[in-house]
Amino acid sequence: MNKIEHIGIAVKDLEVSNLVFEKLFGVASYKEEEVESEGVKTSFFMNGPNKIELLQAISDASPIAKFIEKRGEGIHHIAFDVTDIVSEIERLKKEGFVVLNEIPKKGADNKLVAFLHPKSTNGVLIELCQEIK
Amino acid sequence: MNKIEHIGIAVKDLEVSNLVFEKLFGVASYKEEEVESEGVKTSFFMNGPNKIELLQAISDASPIAKFIEKRGEGIHHIAFDVTDIVSEIERLKKEGFVVLNEIPKKGADNKLVAFLHPKSTNGVLIELCQEIK
Repeated sequence: MNKIEHIGIAVKDLEVSNLVFEKLFGVASYKEEEVESEGVKTSFFMNGPNKIELLQAISDASPIAKFIEKRGEGIHHIAFDVTDIVSEIERLKKEGFVVLNEIPKKGADNKLVAFLHPKSTNGVLIELCQEIK
Repeated sequence: MNKIEHIGIAVKDLEVSNLVFEKLFGVASYKEEEVESEGVKTSFFMNGPNKIELLQAISDASPIAKFIEKRGEGIHHIAFDVTDIVSEIERLKKEGFVVLNEIPKKGADNKLVAFLHPKSTNGVLIELCQEIK
């Protein structure tokens, strides 16, 4: 857990929210990317050593569509940068955390990712992410 | 908006959650602090360049008590470090953001703080914070 790699924010309309966060940070999004496997399109902002990722659902089956239906727009997850995602998953399992996907999968932004179930982390959806070299 | 200063997480029981986050990060909380004006006791973890702040309500009138009643435990706010909170509030007001307290107030961790209304920021409660010199 080296640092917060990014905070993921669920939004209804990426174009509208890009403008909101551009005003907030005073800089524009530097990248947009579609992640078909998660049913989302994403937009990234740099903020010092961290990133903000906006996520809009592109299918009704997307976890983001379900999140917004249930809770509305807002913070969806915190992603922590890890050096070795496989050993970190093992460590966290031993500590009693519930890992949603024990085999890391390809996420946005050239990362291997795994999620911890919010029920084991005080209601916070936590993503581990390791950059793919 | 220099960086994410901390992420605030609403919890029911600070002692229980301290142990959860100690296991998650592999390090213990480095500080606990009560903020009577907000009706909370807090606990801080360092994570690289950022902090995680756990917040437990110590009165029913606390915003954290209301948040947990409505949504359960989870991420409550993102705080961004700013160099000059007064000019940043002015800038954001001009950009159309709704500032909840236009006069910065004393928060936890030796900071002047102000909050943006989530309705103007895609459902995200955003705190601006400036270290008191």
